[in-house]
Amino acid sequence: MPHGQLPTEIREFLALPNPAVMATVRKDGQPVTVATWYLLDGEELLLNLDAGRARLAHLRSEPRISLTALVGDDWYSHVSMQGRVTRIVDDEGLADIDRISTHYTGHPYRVRDRPRVSVWCAIDSWHGWGSFKSAG
Amino acid sequence: MPHGQLPTEIREFLALPNPAVMATVRKDGQPVTVATWYLLDGEELLLNLDAGRARLAHLRSEPRISLTALVGDDWYSHVSMQGRVTRIVDDEGLADIDRISTHYTGHPYRVRDRPRVSVWCAIDSWHGWGSFKSAG
Repeated sequence: MPHGQLPTEIREFLALPNPAVMATVRKDGQPVTVATWYLLDGEELLLNLDAGRARLAHLRSEPRISLTALVGDDWYSHVSMQGRVTRIVDDEGLADIDRISTHYTGHPYRVRDRPRVSVWCAIDSWHGWGSFKSAG
Repeated sequence: MPHGQLPTEIREFLALPNPAVMATVRKDGQPVTVATWYLLDGEELLLNLDAGRARLAHLRSEPRISLTALVGDDWYSHVSMQGRVTRIVDDEGLADIDRISTHYTGHPYRVRDRPRVSVWCAIDSWHGWGSFKSAG
């Protein structure tokens, strides 16, 4: 499982609005997966959650996460990353979710009446499968 | 997060060859996600791994897993399940992986020279999103 900076091929793939699934770990040790939007921003992953999500409590007690991004029409090809939350901040004015929503859908986020938080994650290791097997 | 038998709508969705991502937890507590094939067989999930996978060691020390199955062309709609491994058995003659491969690709599994194991998982809880939000 490679460490260090992501190779260009992986970065270019992760910059696309890919289907993705993230895992958090509950306080009792149970892993929980859920489909998610993400953005690769510099060397970090940006996630964004409704401030009321149980997942947010999981992340505060166990900051380690994993995220798998799939190629939409060839999902055997995928990139999995293991990382950890570096900071959780209020998404003031919904600026971050609008950026993520625009990336995925072309328009700002529709739900405006719920507070959200941005979750920044450092990538500690990653691996590629399928067409990304030899990257790096 | 509902418990108990899966409703018909969810069962019918899970019976399709959907893109899916599973999470295991490493001995050090780090969650690890990876794209996977699965089969819903009765009330259990059937997974199948190369016998040499690190993930198999994770599953032997921490049997709890999570699996998210996505709708291919509308992956906001997804079903996530939390469960645990109930048994791990050698896949004699590659019968199980052939069944799973045929389900996903229409043909038996191509790699014949590597031993594989079947991992059966009970589903303890699940939740649906998007078009599955109200199911159950």
